[in-house]
Amino acid sequence: MPLTTLAGRVSARSTAQRNYWDKQYYPDDESINMSYERKNIQAMTAYVSGEQPDAQDVIKLNTNENPYPPSAKIQQLTANFNIDSLRRYPPPTANRFRDIAATIHKVGRGNIIATRGGDELLRLLITTFVDPRETIGMTDPTYSLYPVLAQIQDCKVFKVPLNEDWSLPQDFAKQINAAGCKLTLLVNPHAPSGQLLNTRQLSVIADELNSVLLIDEAYVDFVVDDYDAIPLIFKHDNVVILRTLSKGYSLAGLRFGYGIGPESIITPMVDKTRDSYNLDLLCQQIAEAALFDRSHALKNCQLVIEQRGRMEAAFSEHGFEALKSQANFLLLTVTNELQNRSGKTAEDIYQALKIRNILVRYFPEERLQNKLRITIGTKDENSAILEALGTILA
Amino acid sequence: MPLTTLAGRVSARSTAQRNYWDKQYYPDDESINMSYERKNIQAMTAYVSGEQPDAQDVIKLNTNENPYPPSAKIQQLTANFNIDSLRRYPPPTANRFRDIAATIHKVGRGNIIATRGGDELLRLLITTFVDPRETIGMTDPTYSLYPVLAQIQDCKVFKVPLNEDWSLPQDFAKQINAAGCKLTLLVNPHAPSGQLLNTRQLSVIADELNSVLLIDEAYVDFVVDDYDAIPLIFKHDNVVILRTLSKGYSLAGLRFGYGIGPESIITPMVDKTRDSYNLDLLCQQIAEAALFDRSHALKNCQLVIEQRGRMEAAFSEHGFEALKSQANFLLLTVTNELQNRSGKTAEDIYQALKIRNILVRYFPEERLQNKLRITIGTKDENSAILEALGTILA
Repeated sequence: MPLTTLAGRVSARSTAQRNYWDKQYYPDDESINMSYERKNIQAMTAYVSGEQPDAQDVIKLNTNENPYPPSAKIQQLTANFNIDSLRRYPPPTANRFRDIAATIHKVGRGNIIATRGGDELLRLLITTFVDPRETIGMTDPTYSLYPVLAQIQDCKVFKVPLNEDWSLPQDFAKQINAAGCKLTLLVNPHAPSGQLLNTRQLSVIADELNSVLLIDEAYVDFVVDDYDAIPLIFKHDNVVILRTLSKGYSLAGLRFGYGIGPESIITPMVDKTRDSYNLDLLCQQIAEAALFDRSHALKNCQLVIEQRGRMEAAFSEHGFEALKSQANFLLLTVTNELQNRSGKTAEDIYQALKIRNILVRYFPEERLQNKLRITIGTKDENSAILEALGTILA
Repeated sequence: MPLTTLAGRVSARSTAQRNYWDKQYYPDDESINMSYERKNIQAMTAYVSGEQPDAQDVIKLNTNENPYPPSAKIQQLTANFNIDSLRRYPPPTANRFRDIAATIHKVGRGNIIATRGGDELLRLLITTFVDPRETIGMTDPTYSLYPVLAQIQDCKVFKVPLNEDWSLPQDFAKQINAAGCKLTLLVNPHAPSGQLLNTRQLSVIADELNSVLLIDEAYVDFVVDDYDAIPLIFKHDNVVILRTLSKGYSLAGLRFGYGIGPESIITPMVDKTRDSYNLDLLCQQIAEAALFDRSHALKNCQLVIEQRGRMEAAFSEHGFEALKSQANFLLLTVTNELQNRSGKTAEDIYQALKIRNILVRYFPEERLQNKLRITIGTKDENSAILEALGTILA
């Protein structure tokens, strides 16, 4: 509709349009809704990711990126990539990538969907399996993107609070079933605590649940325990596993992930709900190269795991309570004792680090407000944050 | 739920789950629904794109790709790209690209959203502005992806048949309003006919419509008429324009597009409904380079336009009715006279070309079944199809 006022036309117009005109006449009346947006979109709060500064001199320990570079094989690939091949549409379902992932995980191509980061898989699961007004289950706390994605689909969110020690309540699946959830999102290792549910626990949950269970394994490459949830997709028709190249493969900038699940879950997303060419040619080829050079990624993860051990001990020495973690980050509690001694809250420490060009993650929500989530960096980055904390807490 | 039969547990389970068990006992009963899928997803038919063969010796005139290569500046960029930068998350909203596009189109950054191909913009418009069960308006025929995207959101589709000469009925907007459409998708130049609505016609429609109007300008770079719809976004609060790098910029393999519209339409998609990092770093940089070297793309398009003139004449000589087109394809009608003379239907010709490794597009739907849509190729590719047709129609 036009942006000029022609009052005579108003009568023939829709409510949205009449509101628009009303707004022209009563610009201060907040009750007049002149937006075309769906109500759930108007009402929702956008996802807030950790800060992504442009500056290169920042020590960035706030968004769980891998501190070590990706495989040199990828550098070879991009250096020799012939851009003429970009003229044509890319392989629509990334079948070469799917085949490589299937071989690594000992599943079939039909058990794999390649996605634009893990985010796209989460969205596709909701789009494919959850009607608007239906309910999505999750723990509290969890990855903060989940409730945002639920809101976009106009879904309800059912949160099961974790126990004091971050473990899952025994009756988790029962609660989820009672709430009528159509999809349950479980990040494992858990964010932001780094705790791991073992395969047996997951199997019991999948068994009890009435609906689809997503096991978000974004951080699985940093697990040291004996853990492999993939066989669950052959034992349960409702289990799908999320993997990403963002963390273990040092490719957060590539936006590439994949799902592993029974064909009954994977096929409708591949054939129907996925954007028809969701992955460009170049990122498909880079992702293939990354998986081919998996040993490079595993070596990087090993370095991160070593540094994680160092940092757990070092943060504890500084007086934090540092939860043992199976991911590439640590959740630190600013204990009452530390706060009393230093005169600083978790938020104060976050701000003091930021002034020193060191970014960590602070979540203002109730259960996390005395905590900091700190990504494991390189040896030097880790030394730098420890030194800074020495000054800040002195 | 488990894939072993434990009948004792059945009673406590949901309908979906009981159906699952029923299916175990009555495997031939088609009425038992054992899927977790939403009903609209189960019921929908997947989008069928033109064939994308792996073979390199195919003359591919079926999916409207540009036959000329992308800018050499992009080759320089990929050759020198430092993959270490992929370690971090990419700029979430592609602001550098938005600024370049904004400068070209004389709009502000806030008027631009960068998307994964035009497809993502279409999906975001539906997600942001159309509730499930609401209606999306379009012409008949139109780009065949539109009804598929509507189905995914569980929306109704309202189709306004084009006139015999492919023009839009005078009362198009009135019909759309009467059907209560929340979003109207208009491809201009039109696919598959190549016909163009002029800016004045679009302005009248936007003015009359109660709801959001998407003008899909995928093929705009091949228009020779005096045409510029972008100023409409400042005159109408409901107009958004789709652009893609797939056609004019020879980058179908890159999956990059953008939307141009009023901030009230663009901002909720940028801030709320977009996947949080929808575009990887490398494709953002390639897209920036492509726009910087816009003159290269314009030169390619000029070559296509010249070949289009040649092919219109040549197809007419072969006895087809070749509609004048403003896009990089021609819609050919196999006239009764041609069919009688050659003994071949449009589908026969499509098949005969395919056997000769030449792919064109055939749509089996009623209004198009005596037609072929043929992409304009290079001079040599065009000569090859003309020669093949000489044999086939002899």
